[in-house]
Amino acid sequence: MAAIGAMPEINGFRQQSRRSFVTLILTILTSSQSILIVWSKRAGKYEYSVTTANFLVEALKCALSLAALVRIWRKDGVTDDNRLSTTWDEVKVYPIPAALYLVKNLLQYYIFAYVDAPGYQILKNLNIISTGVLYQIILKRKLTEIQWAAFILLCAGCTTAQLNPSSDHVLQTPLQGWVMAIVMALLSGFAGVYTEAIIKKRPSRNINVQNFWLYVFGMIFNAFAIMTQDFDAVMNDGFFHGYSLITVLMILNHALSGIAVSMVMKYADNIVKVYSTSVAMLLTAIVSVFLFGFHLSLAFFLGSIVVSVAIYLHSTSKARR
Amino acid sequence: MAAIGAMPEINGFRQQSRRSFVTLILTILTSSQSILIVWSKRAGKYEYSVTTANFLVEALKCALSLAALVRIWRKDGVTDDNRLSTTWDEVKVYPIPAALYLVKNLLQYYIFAYVDAPGYQILKNLNIISTGVLYQIILKRKLTEIQWAAFILLCAGCTTAQLNPSSDHVLQTPLQGWVMAIVMALLSGFAGVYTEAIIKKRPSRNINVQNFWLYVFGMIFNAFAIMTQDFDAVMNDGFFHGYSLITVLMILNHALSGIAVSMVMKYADNIVKVYSTSVAMLLTAIVSVFLFGFHLSLAFFLGSIVVSVAIYLHSTSKARR
Repeated sequence: MAAIGAMPEINGFRQQSRRSFVTLILTILTSSQSILIVWSKRAGKYEYSVTTANFLVEALKCALSLAALVRIWRKDGVTDDNRLSTTWDEVKVYPIPAALYLVKNLLQYYIFAYVDAPGYQILKNLNIISTGVLYQIILKRKLTEIQWAAFILLCAGCTTAQLNPSSDHVLQTPLQGWVMAIVMALLSGFAGVYTEAIIKKRPSRNINVQNFWLYVFGMIFNAFAIMTQDFDAVMNDGFFHGYSLITVLMILNHALSGIAVSMVMKYADNIVKVYSTSVAMLLTAIVSVFLFGFHLSLAFFLGSIVVSVAIYLHSTSKARR
Repeated sequence: MAAIGAMPEINGFRQQSRRSFVTLILTILTSSQSILIVWSKRAGKYEYSVTTANFLVEALKCALSLAALVRIWRKDGVTDDNRLSTTWDEVKVYPIPAALYLVKNLLQYYIFAYVDAPGYQILKNLNIISTGVLYQIILKRKLTEIQWAAFILLCAGCTTAQLNPSSDHVLQTPLQGWVMAIVMALLSGFAGVYTEAIIKKRPSRNINVQNFWLYVFGMIFNAFAIMTQDFDAVMNDGFFHGYSLITVLMILNHALSGIAVSMVMKYADNIVKVYSTSVAMLLTAIVSVFLFGFHLSLAFFLGSIVVSVAIYLHSTSKARR
């Protein structure tokens, strides 16, 4: 994966196949991520500090980007595009996505006062709409009417696929819950779209350098999170208390998917990312039938049909441009 | 309504507005029909023979068509297009839709051995797909890819809107149940598309004459149904036993919607009819909230969004042709 993005000049076909490749990788990593979460929940409660795991994810991504860079330097030498040193002008915007995610994660603790966990899963689909709106506003790239129709279908289809007999509770969410859900969707959408804006602003800059700086700020913000939320637990029980094989696999998976997300931002866009994670959600459910004996509901089938039509509409609309 | 279709030559705008008008009327009649059914169920069980009511619906439609024709004869005189007399060549196909509906209604008694009533409501959405397939095969008019996508969405959206916590039982329907549901969907779709083929085959022929002959055969087939199914009840308790105000309103409504369906077949098509009845289903649910204090589920909202997008896609795709 590290070699991707090493050549500045490529033709349309290679660009397209690279886009498909990073999207496929992201889809596979995201669905295996959810499967790991189900597995870890079955194995027992989280015993480790989530903040330390998040910090390690950022550190691992940083290390992987650096390793990729070393390989590139050896092959191509150090150039203006792949040198690690940076300017204040380039780096000043890099902390913003990490800061937005931090605020969103902090809000996450408070929203559960108004919505239960399955209800929150349903409300998270608002991310799809907020990403579309902010993509159009911030990146100033217009989605066609058919693409918007497809995006609304994607949101409705994903929500339908996740329906269960208790989902109607979501409609009783108090106003504060709705406001928080919308604010969180906007923060998450803004962080994603802003990351794309940062990465795309310098198209010739090597993605591994861009990732390195993004993840450095990710480490700093997560270190802050450890200190404010899990300082006592880490001091008393140690940084790695409660870690298991699943924890290590989850950290590895999160790190790789994080890099895949960056690649999708560089070579495709946030819209592709949203489709990719939606398909991953459906894949996870199907794989869970075989792994954990889950049952698929009629709502899941209907939601999958709607998501499939959304993907079809998005792709035909693209081809017509 | 009877005056509609009196002039053989009209311009595109009048054609469009007439199409919209009959579609609107059909939507309103179909949704009030379902509300009457809910009302009659609340008022108590059906005490009357359904076959006699069906016979009266056909008789009333026949009478209304004849009344419309008398008005037209007085205004325009008797012409080749509006004379009641017919040829064997014209009339020989008219019994086919009535016969198909009869077979479908007979099957309806047997499918409940495999599926419960709410499950049957869900399976009835297969009608949407069967109508689309038969429309394309029999009437040889091609739906565009976007229109097909919209039609699949319409089917998925309607089913989603009707989901309830027990809907998953449908997935346990035995194979015989599925086969019967598909056969019934094909019969119903075939009857609809064949009626359109009959009506459209002679575009200049007055719709009221065409309706008259369709309904004459409807009366004959329903008289047959009374004799085979409710002969004893009618002989012992009388033809009108158990009739109430609601029964009369339902017969009136069914007759008017039947005529509206014919008008939609003449001036629009089966595809428009399917959209119209789907929107009627959603309208019924919304009106029932106010009339009967029903609650709308999250699935209903999601289904309505998908149906709305389907209508939007169908209409934009039409405009582009």
